[in-house]
Amino acid sequence: VSESALTAAAADRGRFRHFMLKEIHEQPRAVAETLEGRLTEDGVPEGLLGPGSEDLLARVRSVQILACGTSYHAGLVARYWIEGLLGLPCRVEVASEFRYRRHAVLPDCLLVTISQSGETADSLAALRQAGEDDYLASLAVCNVPESSLVRESDLVLMTHAGPEIGVASTKAFTTQLVALFLLTLALGRHHGLDADRRRTFAQHLRALPAALEKVLALDAPVERLAMTLVDKQHALFLGRGAHYPIALEGALKLKEISYIHAEAYPAGELKHGPLALVDADMPVVVVAPNNPLLEKLKSNLEEVRARGGHLMVFADDVTALGGDGGIQCLAVPPADDWLSPIVHTVPLQLLAYHTAVLKGTDVDQPRNLAKSVTVE
Amino acid sequence: VSESALTAAAADRGRFRHFMLKEIHEQPRAVAETLEGRLTEDGVPEGLLGPGSEDLLARVRSVQILACGTSYHAGLVARYWIEGLLGLPCRVEVASEFRYRRHAVLPDCLLVTISQSGETADSLAALRQAGEDDYLASLAVCNVPESSLVRESDLVLMTHAGPEIGVASTKAFTTQLVALFLLTLALGRHHGLDADRRRTFAQHLRALPAALEKVLALDAPVERLAMTLVDKQHALFLGRGAHYPIALEGALKLKEISYIHAEAYPAGELKHGPLALVDADMPVVVVAPNNPLLEKLKSNLEEVRARGGHLMVFADDVTALGGDGGIQCLAVPPADDWLSPIVHTVPLQLLAYHTAVLKGTDVDQPRNLAKSVTVE
Repeated sequence: VSESALTAAAADRGRFRHFMLKEIHEQPRAVAETLEGRLTEDGVPEGLLGPGSEDLLARVRSVQILACGTSYHAGLVARYWIEGLLGLPCRVEVASEFRYRRHAVLPDCLLVTISQSGETADSLAALRQAGEDDYLASLAVCNVPESSLVRESDLVLMTHAGPEIGVASTKAFTTQLVALFLLTLALGRHHGLDADRRRTFAQHLRALPAALEKVLALDAPVERLAMTLVDKQHALFLGRGAHYPIALEGALKLKEISYIHAEAYPAGELKHGPLALVDADMPVVVVAPNNPLLEKLKSNLEEVRARGGHLMVFADDVTALGGDGGIQCLAVPPADDWLSPIVHTVPLQLLAYHTAVLKGTDVDQPRNLAKSVTVE
Repeated sequence: VSESALTAAAADRGRFRHFMLKEIHEQPRAVAETLEGRLTEDGVPEGLLGPGSEDLLARVRSVQILACGTSYHAGLVARYWIEGLLGLPCRVEVASEFRYRRHAVLPDCLLVTISQSGETADSLAALRQAGEDDYLASLAVCNVPESSLVRESDLVLMTHAGPEIGVASTKAFTTQLVALFLLTLALGRHHGLDADRRRTFAQHLRALPAALEKVLALDAPVERLAMTLVDKQHALFLGRGAHYPIALEGALKLKEISYIHAEAYPAGELKHGPLALVDADMPVVVVAPNNPLLEKLKSNLEEVRARGGHLMVFADDVTALGGDGGIQCLAVPPADDWLSPIVHTVPLQLLAYHTAVLKGTDVDQPRNLAKSVTVE
């Protein structure tokens, strides 16, 4: 991929006002390149993780994921996939926390680190420290082939996002999710995911770049939502299941580039405290795909509306939600439930982007932040 | 305990302006009552969890904790104890998330639910649903003996906090922590915690009520800190290790009763996004006991100060932190590292309380919230 169009264009914003917007729009291609050569008729090719890796995958009985920031959110999504589709216990932890506590190692555990740069200090230190523990093997999900993380891991699954210039990570995140879904399929061959399901997922993955193009077409309506957000100092982001980490990531984007204090909660926790914050000054952004959890989420939403809160709902099917006062809905193209977190990421990136542009912040170089956190 | 002084006084605020303040001050007694009859020379008595429970505890090889809100934060602290002292894998999850996803069950797993009322809808539903899974046994940590959670669990470890009237939980939380530490000692007898260490911990626990009295004496200086906070709309709470959940709980208290948007982060994640939010309007509250993590935390704090942020530091030894512009330190009486999260809870409760009183909110009945969330 080092000669891909993504690389050649890296230093040039092209028709885009910011690198971040360019990188948001590169996601269909970045996802396609990350999938390139990695899908077969019934899932992923044998040896996806290298020669001899199938024997190892067959022996895996648990997964431990370590990462920081945006990459940590990718890991949280992967947990839903690995437990939900394979039934393998999967733990995810912030690398800076993991490395400073005594932790138990699950039996026959695959250690997965995730980092765009492969130089994130805490993730690298956690990997090195874990070398003393009894892990089956270490796997790096990374975007930079020559990085320390890649060199020091037993196995590697590269994302092919191309260079990412904007400090707020976008295409690196969605390609991490794709790589982690490929890992789920590779594990699935040995852990109860039958060929029929793997075939269906391979089809959904092939359709993903086109699905992301469709979501990018929501740019104008998302910009209109941003106009509501730009004057606010706060926002709550809610999600359930694998869309909770997407709410976390959406809130982080808004924090990073617009400096609006956005915080994410699993929707069911709303009543256990944060509901006290909700009033007309605290908009609530909801990631609510049309899956079995939507009904529950809707009853949570009613409470917010009843309390004067302003709702922004991203849903596959917004018809049931109505459009009365205090609620703005945006219909996101429907996607397979399991891959829906990847699709729902994009409108939240656009929401943060347009809000920041309207506020006039330095989108590509937000204050106080560095692209890679290579010191502790 | 139903005839204890705590119960008799429940409906009476006594000399206190609010139930919440009364309940904060009842913590030394509530902790003493929760420990009553449960400490021996070398830890906890055999059969702490009932007849025949020792055989079961010996068979436990992992722990799954489920809870909501404040009780969830207690579970997060327990994870550090159970993994750090015993080496047993321990997972903690928000009950409303756990019940709606397919999750893997760890081998020989003890299921622990935590709820003050024992009627929390999601925790109860999660317990019922887990009945279909392959858990070794279920244990309820609860404050109400006749509650559904207690009736439907195999084992019970009651907190003896007495009735809690204030909607924002205080003494229920600290007694949950004490109960969970007793559970850690009970498991420890079978899982590598030798008699010497158990004896030391029993001594520390016996000293805990007096330690909590000492922290309550910080009321006046904490009130002065609250004067800085009362005009703010935001706050970040930082902690590391087992003090990260205490930062979460401190932020939740502030949210619940003062309606200030407080959010907690593990300190190491600061550079991965939230640092962009920090300016003169976003004070940073730090839970920084004098343990080996303090040095790391100090380097994180320097960044915040360098960016105009206002710091409030709760530390055992504040001498090293200096008192230059933009930093307020409060010396918390030193405690054993493992029990320090319990001690550090109290000043954050007082901080939320005094801030709310200064703002003039309805401290005991904050808007939008119910004492027990008995519906989904």
